[in-house]
Amino acid sequence: MPKLRVHAFAISLDGYGAGPDQSLADPLGKGGTGLHQWFFPTRTFQRTLFGKDEGTTGLDDDFAARGFDKIGAWILGRNMFGPVRGPWPDESWRGWWGDNPPYHVPVFVLTHHARPPLEMEGGTIFHFVTDGVEAALARAKEAAGARDIRIGGGAATIRQYLNARLIDEMHIVISPVLLGGGESLLAGIDLPALGYEVTEHVPSEKATHVVFSKRS
Amino acid sequence: MPKLRVHAFAISLDGYGAGPDQSLADPLGKGGTGLHQWFFPTRTFQRTLFGKDEGTTGLDDDFAARGFDKIGAWILGRNMFGPVRGPWPDESWRGWWGDNPPYHVPVFVLTHHARPPLEMEGGTIFHFVTDGVEAALARAKEAAGARDIRIGGGAATIRQYLNARLIDEMHIVISPVLLGGGESLLAGIDLPALGYEVTEHVPSEKATHVVFSKRS
Repeated sequence: MPKLRVHAFAISLDGYGAGPDQSLADPLGKGGTGLHQWFFPTRTFQRTLFGKDEGTTGLDDDFAARGFDKIGAWILGRNMFGPVRGPWPDESWRGWWGDNPPYHVPVFVLTHHARPPLEMEGGTIFHFVTDGVEAALARAKEAAGARDIRIGGGAATIRQYLNARLIDEMHIVISPVLLGGGESLLAGIDLPALGYEVTEHVPSEKATHVVFSKRS
Repeated sequence: MPKLRVHAFAISLDGYGAGPDQSLADPLGKGGTGLHQWFFPTRTFQRTLFGKDEGTTGLDDDFAARGFDKIGAWILGRNMFGPVRGPWPDESWRGWWGDNPPYHVPVFVLTHHARPPLEMEGGTIFHFVTDGVEAALARAKEAAGARDIRIGGGAATIRQYLNARLIDEMHIVISPVLLGGGESLLAGIDLPALGYEVTEHVPSEKATHVVFSKRS
């Protein structure tokens, strides 16, 4: 049975998945790049984002690589797709990633504002879903076939899927930074009551990797 | 200059310093003992609590031992001292630790209800302070002389001292457990704005040790 998975979602020591004051110039919010210092040097990141055949291997890279294994579709919150808020003024915004985004499969973007699908180079197609998280999941499952679906974020999107008990497996990364404010990933969510338990705990030099899984 | 320090304060992955539903039978709250699995086996814990000359050494024990180095006084929130709430019905409650508590120095207990000092074996004297966190700190400093003061907790007490910028150094331990609810240690506290930064990040097999320090 295909799974709904979260991978490599980094939070700060104070629990935030992005810094405060997100903007076009600062898409991860103030201090938000500090969340990803474990990830940027990895071979997986360097290959996936820049097509370079270099980067570090080891624990951090192993976890990063898992996030691209057997993924047949992605789901993103709208703010992960871009900084535009409210109705789309036109179709000029085509994502943060240039002409050839790192997905290479269908990507379902949650939004309140309809927009035609957007076909990019390299197999990525952005679909804009206006009828909620369950509808997005149904469409992503159809697109992914036997493969799994990955939720890219942000925190608000993950929280919705967690509260609906729809996530099967979730890898988070606790980075040694303090953000002081922003979007909290887990505050107010009772994960044990929702049926989640810690199934992996692997510290690396740069961060702590934790996997939660839903009890079957 | 003597410092105000926090040591070995463990929080869950979802940020709680104790589990929900604390009681006499369950002083750490539901699931709360999971927070301290890194600590119980250490030589420092075994020596300090049970007087045994055994236990593990290594990273976890090194951090545990620091918490007893050059400490001349402690400050505790009332719930750390015991389960009694409201006015003291009598003087029969003498702490969770038996006749010879592991402090061996003066301990200042924050409470709204006056009570005479309580002298225990081994040098521990509990003083009950009714005029707030700054008064407790002033008295603890006087008692500690050239040595430092350690805040034992709980979360609410640490939060008050953090918000007042009175803590100089704070070691927390992120344990691989989910509690789902309880007292959050850091939620809503903007540590960078208060002048704190991460000065150490040391993962062990059992937990992640982090030290915050106040910029001078």
